[in-house]
Amino acid sequence: MQNFTFQNPTKLLFGKGSIALLSKEIAKTSKVMLTFGSGSVRINGVYDQVIAALAGYNLVEFWGIEPNPKVETLRKAIELGKAEKVDFILAVGGGSTLDGTKLIAAAIPYAGDAWELVLNPKLITKGIPFASVMTLPATGSEMNSGAVISNLATQEKFSFRAYFPQFSVLDPEVTYSLSPYHIACGIADTFVHVMEQYLTSPGQSLLMDRWAEGILMTLTEIAPEIDENPRDYDLMSNYMLCATMALNGFIGMGVSQDWATHMIGHELTALHGLTHGESLAIVLPGTMTVLSEQKKDKILQYGERIWGINKGSSGLRIAETIARTEAFFRSLGLHTRLSELNIGEETIAEIELRFDERDAKFGECQNVNSVVARAILECCL
Amino acid sequence: MQNFTFQNPTKLLFGKGSIALLSKEIAKTSKVMLTFGSGSVRINGVYDQVIAALAGYNLVEFWGIEPNPKVETLRKAIELGKAEKVDFILAVGGGSTLDGTKLIAAAIPYAGDAWELVLNPKLITKGIPFASVMTLPATGSEMNSGAVISNLATQEKFSFRAYFPQFSVLDPEVTYSLSPYHIACGIADTFVHVMEQYLTSPGQSLLMDRWAEGILMTLTEIAPEIDENPRDYDLMSNYMLCATMALNGFIGMGVSQDWATHMIGHELTALHGLTHGESLAIVLPGTMTVLSEQKKDKILQYGERIWGINKGSSGLRIAETIARTEAFFRSLGLHTRLSELNIGEETIAEIELRFDERDAKFGECQNVNSVVARAILECCL
Repeated sequence: MQNFTFQNPTKLLFGKGSIALLSKEIAKTSKVMLTFGSGSVRINGVYDQVIAALAGYNLVEFWGIEPNPKVETLRKAIELGKAEKVDFILAVGGGSTLDGTKLIAAAIPYAGDAWELVLNPKLITKGIPFASVMTLPATGSEMNSGAVISNLATQEKFSFRAYFPQFSVLDPEVTYSLSPYHIACGIADTFVHVMEQYLTSPGQSLLMDRWAEGILMTLTEIAPEIDENPRDYDLMSNYMLCATMALNGFIGMGVSQDWATHMIGHELTALHGLTHGESLAIVLPGTMTVLSEQKKDKILQYGERIWGINKGSSGLRIAETIARTEAFFRSLGLHTRLSELNIGEETIAEIELRFDERDAKFGECQNVNSVVARAILECCL
Repeated sequence: MQNFTFQNPTKLLFGKGSIALLSKEIAKTSKVMLTFGSGSVRINGVYDQVIAALAGYNLVEFWGIEPNPKVETLRKAIELGKAEKVDFILAVGGGSTLDGTKLIAAAIPYAGDAWELVLNPKLITKGIPFASVMTLPATGSEMNSGAVISNLATQEKFSFRAYFPQFSVLDPEVTYSLSPYHIACGIADTFVHVMEQYLTSPGQSLLMDRWAEGILMTLTEIAPEIDENPRDYDLMSNYMLCATMALNGFIGMGVSQDWATHMIGHELTALHGLTHGESLAIVLPGTMTVLSEQKKDKILQYGERIWGINKGSSGLRIAETIARTEAFFRSLGLHTRLSELNIGEETIAEIELRFDERDAKFGECQNVNSVVARAILECCL
């Protein structure tokens, strides 16, 4: 097991009706900025619940944080926050709204431009405290310090680390209005978050392996049932809990991590606007295929423990395991091939160029460079 | 899934050499009280490592916190802490040293007697911050707010909740000097901590079930190997991580909990000085037997997923599962029967009386009263 440091101070308020607890968590004297996405929370009743819970508070609203939040949009929120002298921010929405809010919170006390903080997070000093009411289980952003921000001008998409939400409200009932596509992307995102921390080499931590597999088993168990019953409280509770636990550090203690699939997926989103979860569903089988020798032992363990694949040569078992993984994503209703989205050589060449320019060395062995990224993407055609 | 609130702010510093990081975590200006057990840390080198890491600090030492820490001993440490005006406490030892330290830290700023805080934890305001260098993986005390304190005068042993350690240092190498009996008790303690949060009714949280089972599977996998190689770093890392993760709230989200076995075990310790882990190994099979109808579905799930028991009638499978659980504790080298320790009817009658006087209603259904406790103990003879 590798040495590690772990700390996660975020408070979770989980369960039906928990939005009503907001006033117990935010000081009455706060000047609160509420940040939102495009407006779905107006339709599903979450906005009304939040406003009711915060009756009597001094509130400012910022609307319009888009999927794959763009620094161009966030700059407007930062300007508003500075002008209004807000001292607490509550993100109400999905992972994109929350990711954007992390940059807003960090940038309000910062004199320079917000994009500088994405490029150099060491410039972040303790900014404005923030929290979330999470409406789309997927990114895990509600219980970690990370965020991914896009830059429209430069067509870039980078992740950075800021600081943790003070608390997050997770009410599974707010997921009832999600579209099947959103749920599918959320499940795929959660699944791949686990795989990035799991599919390296086995035995680094027996316990962490079991916990990662526990999330994967739960996802594969509930996905077809959610498809049938997207308003089943217990199913959606498990989905929501899986999403949070997949990326809060709990399964990453003492183990190496990959994240090459994410780095390639981010480029697909930056170039073509692919939904994050779908980009991962496309790339992961390619990563597994190209790196199957390096990840052999762990793929075999994953195949046996998650998919019950334990017969035949290791080569056959690996092939079957990768096929089952892709089939799982397809069963969610997601595309798993670039060609289905008319993405081809031009994009591969652009990503190869970008990885080359950045001297990219991703993955647990730091060997996913521009050449390997091309090979992975060619597998995804 | 039940509604829940979760927060665990404790920082973990895990791995070989991590004691050297102490000076990064404690302000140089602090007046630090070091608390110790009986002196094993002088022999295994941990004391020297701590003193070296804290060179230049203003230190006060308190020695002699015993297993099942007694308020009579702790009062002396509290007196010392008040007199020396300490503002940080570092517990160096096992769960008992740390549990005792939780009361010391809470009681230093308190004007009344420390036992009042055990009986009424609401009297605890934020006390002195504290941390730990954990030397005996077992109680999970290094990452939770709970503690169990005994009272010699009244022959009582009660748990209470204070506040979390600021950080805990977990270096698996410090476990190399533990006796096989200590390790056996630590594994049993960890195992039963999981069972108390798991063996209720199934399906409350699919994910939490998987995580609880993940710890149980890891423990059953490593226990015989540790018996062979108690100085294997990776084995001891997994053992140490299991102990911490078993009782830090991570596997208790949204599920009901039992804790009847602990409440009965505490009485055995209070009356006969049994080591905590061994008391649990004796009581758990009795609890499972007496409550087998109520816990039927979860015992079947546990038997199948942990012990591979999936053939025969449910009655047979339950009996086999309970037998396997007891056999596991015996394989650790622990006693699992009261009669082996010459404990009999007199003790059962005393515990029955105590539960009656306290109007005890333990367990997830609050039905473990004096009568059920007697039945459980009679099963343990």
